Amino acid sequence: MPMVKMVDDASASPAAKEVFDDIRGSRNTDYVNNIWRTLAVHPPMLKRFWNYMKEVMIEESRLDSLTKEYIYLAVSMTNNCEYCIHTHIAAARKKGMDDEMLAELVEIVALANAGNRLTQGLQVEVDERFKPRFD
Amino acid sequence: MPMVKMVDDASASPAAKEVFDDIRGSRNTDYVNNIWRTLAVHPPMLKRFWNYMKEVMIEESRLDSLTKEYIYLAVSMTNNCEYCIHTHIAAARKKGMDDEMLAELVEIVALANAGNRLTQGLQVEVDERFKPRFD
Amino acid sequence: MPMVKMVDDASASPAAKEVFDDIRGSRNTDYVNNIWRTLAVHPPMLKRFWNYMKEVMIEESRLDSLTKEYIYLAVSMTNNCEYCIHTHIAAARKKGMDDEMLAELVEIVALANAGNRLTQGLQVEVDERFKPRFD
Amino acid sequence: MPMVKMVDDASASPAAKEVFDDIRGSRNTDYVNNIWRTLAVHPPMLKRFWNYMKEVMIEESRLDSLTKEYIYLAVSMTNNCEYCIHTHIAAARKKGMDDEMLAELVEIVALANAGNRLTQGLQVEVDERFKPRFD
Amino acid sequence: MPMVKMVDDASASPAAKEVFDDIRGSRNTDYVNNIWRTLAVHPPMLKRFWNYMKEVMIEESRLDSLTKEYIYLAVSMTNNCEYCIHTHIAAARKKGMDDEMLAELVEIVALANAGNRLTQGLQVEVDERFKPRFD
Amino acid sequence: MPMVKMVDDASASPAAKEVFDDIRGSRNTDYVNNIWRTLAVHPPMLKRFWNYMKEVMIEESRLDSLTKEYIYLAVSMTNNCEYCIHTHIAAARKKGMDDEMLAELVEIVALANAGNRLTQGLQVEVDERFKPRFD
Repeated sequence: MPMVKMVDDASASPAAKEVFDDIRGSRNTDYVNNIWRTLAVHPPMLKRFWNYMKEVMIEESRLDSLTKEYIYLAVSMTNNCEYCIHTHIAAARKKGMDDEMLAELVEIVALANAGNRLTQGLQVEVDERFKPRFD
Repeated sequence: MPMVKMVDDASASPAAKEVFDDIRGSRNTDYVNNIWRTLAVHPPMLKRFWNYMKEVMIEESRLDSLTKEYIYLAVSMTNNCEYCIHTHIAAARKKGMDDEMLAELVEIVALANAGNRLTQGLQVEVDERFKPRFD
Repeated sequence: MPMVKMVDDASASPAAKEVFDDIRGSRNTDYVNNIWRTLAVHPPMLKRFWNYMKEVMIEESRLDSLTKEYIYLAVSMTNNCEYCIHTHIAAARKKGMDDEMLAELVEIVALANAGNRLTQGLQVEVDERFKPRFD
Repeated sequence: MPMVKMVDDASASPAAKEVFDDIRGSRNTDYVNNIWRTLAVHPPMLKRFWNYMKEVMIEESRLDSLTKEYIYLAVSMTNNCEYCIHTHIAAARKKGMDDEMLAELVEIVALANAGNRLTQGLQVEVDERFKPRFD
Repeated sequence: MPMVKMVDDASASPAAKEVFDDIRGSRNTDYVNNIWRTLAVHPPMLKRFWNYMKEVMIEESRLDSLTKEYIYLAVSMTNNCEYCIHTHIAAARKKGMDDEMLAELVEIVALANAGNRLTQGLQVEVDERFKPRFD
Repeated sequence: MPMVKMVDDASASPAAKEVFDDIRGSRNTDYVNNIWRTLAVHPPMLKRFWNYMKEVMIEESRLDSLTKEYIYLAVSMTNNCEYCIHTHIAAARKKGMDDEMLAELVEIVALANAGNRLTQGLQVEVDERFKPRFD
């Protein structure tokens, strides 16, 4: 259970209500997830994170929408964020990810975590040729 | 500097030499990166990690090659693996990633790390609708 | 459920009993938290961690008591320690933290986790002027 | 060295230039840190993170300015962000932190990381009395 | 609950069935753990991780079997992997670990996590004499 | 370079000097490592961590001295603590660890980090039979 009381529509401040409405509109659903109802305990925090999420994850950009979900999931799996894993796997499935693609994702995440520790554990140094040059 | 002596071609055991050759062939280059020369201190470790990397990252599969690099990088950035960040950014650039795409990647990594902590810090619970059902 | 059996008063060794009494006295309560009853499986471990906690967190020092809780919580939120988040939020609330202050805390934790990854992901180097000089 | 070329004033886009000017004004200095010159490779990313930082860390709020730095530092020390540790220790020193206060901060960070692992390693469960109740 | 459907014997593909049989044989038990039934959603992933685990953890080598479990557990406790902590504590108990040895393990894990942050938080540099020399 | 000035013998307070002497005696060497000279900026912190280290790592107990170093190293590699990796590899080598044993250690650390993420990424639940029972 969250450490603060989740905010329902009836008790939402006007500032929180405005964000809830933007969430509903942007996502084309009437449902507002627990994370937003929790952040609403402090409306400026809700507004900031929602706008950050909307601008980075929802607005069109160079990376396509499913690739963005993979990246978000790779971080959430590494940090073991149960909530984030559940909601972003649901989002990725809506965008076409099936079980095999999920398996490939999680296996790369595992491989990278292994590779990171081999490299850090033995303190391997960056090869000269992989150091960036800007002139 | 690595915690063990890197293995050059002259001193490589036959088992290590065989992996070096496979690396050269698979990557179409004569250069063998520091990580492989370091792992070669224990040839079975070198062989296992190289095969794991080759099967998961290099062989054709459902996820395309650049997407795989993004996922590997998202993990490496979260774990601050300097070596891995350098080598996999180099690999991703070869596959078409430019500065703007790199910026999008790192910003999603930052956003996800923020979102993970908002959710974990307030102990938000998974919405019923995001729990997987299998029947 | 903990991986070892928690120690109740009846079965506590004299060494564990002594620490339980010190906890009760220092905290002015009869209740002994699960963490202490678990560590009591190995009394020297219980005694060491309790003394460490008491000296660093409870004894008067330069940082005030609520600030110490914020720092402890910032770490626990970053590591997603469910137990620690619950008990130290309870402690901080007793010392005056309300929902808005908790929201500010968690938002800084999220911001810092984002900033850490922007910096590490792009491998930004320390500006000359921020390197410490001692002469 | 950063993985992208840092942006100097001469080559900054109008959008990046505007943020640089806001940084100079808000901080009352002519110097723009490496992190901002790096993020400027993608001006929307620069603008988003600067605004997030400004609103959460610089604007007046319930937590005082030095306490905010402690929280930011506790996270950065746990994540071993060399850049962030350097710049935020410099900021905290400006706001009055001396060596002894820094020592207290880092010792609480160490203690919390130890306590988190004792609790997680033994899988201690939250006491009933520390579970939040909202009615 | 896992994010994919666990694979029972009846629905296992021949490739997955073969790994299940190898697990049963190597471990001398008829029971196949949840992790393997979950990885079986993508048989090549199941096969790769099982072989990796078998070669590194089960086959005879320089480190004895219980020491290997301690190392695996030290990582799992630091990452708070609930599943891994449970299964590898069970494995270590079978190999002779009692409560006191478990307590020693978890206390070293806590101490190391503390020591890591003291060192990183204050950015202590490696003494010349501890830098490896190879000539 | 550390964020505070390291304390040499000439400028050490009596409390710090006493710990330096205990280090020299316990380790049978005249050399005092950088970590201790850094912690000496706040003598109570120096004394606490040194005593913690001495009691857990140096005093005789159920786990042998080299096994303790492996556990400390497994944590330090997972957290990428460069200082700790260097000093504890040096300590382990003194106690008999050769290159092959180091390779086995780092490979288990990598494997465990991979296994942790497979399990967490797919949210595998603990099998009933691995849940501890105490009655």
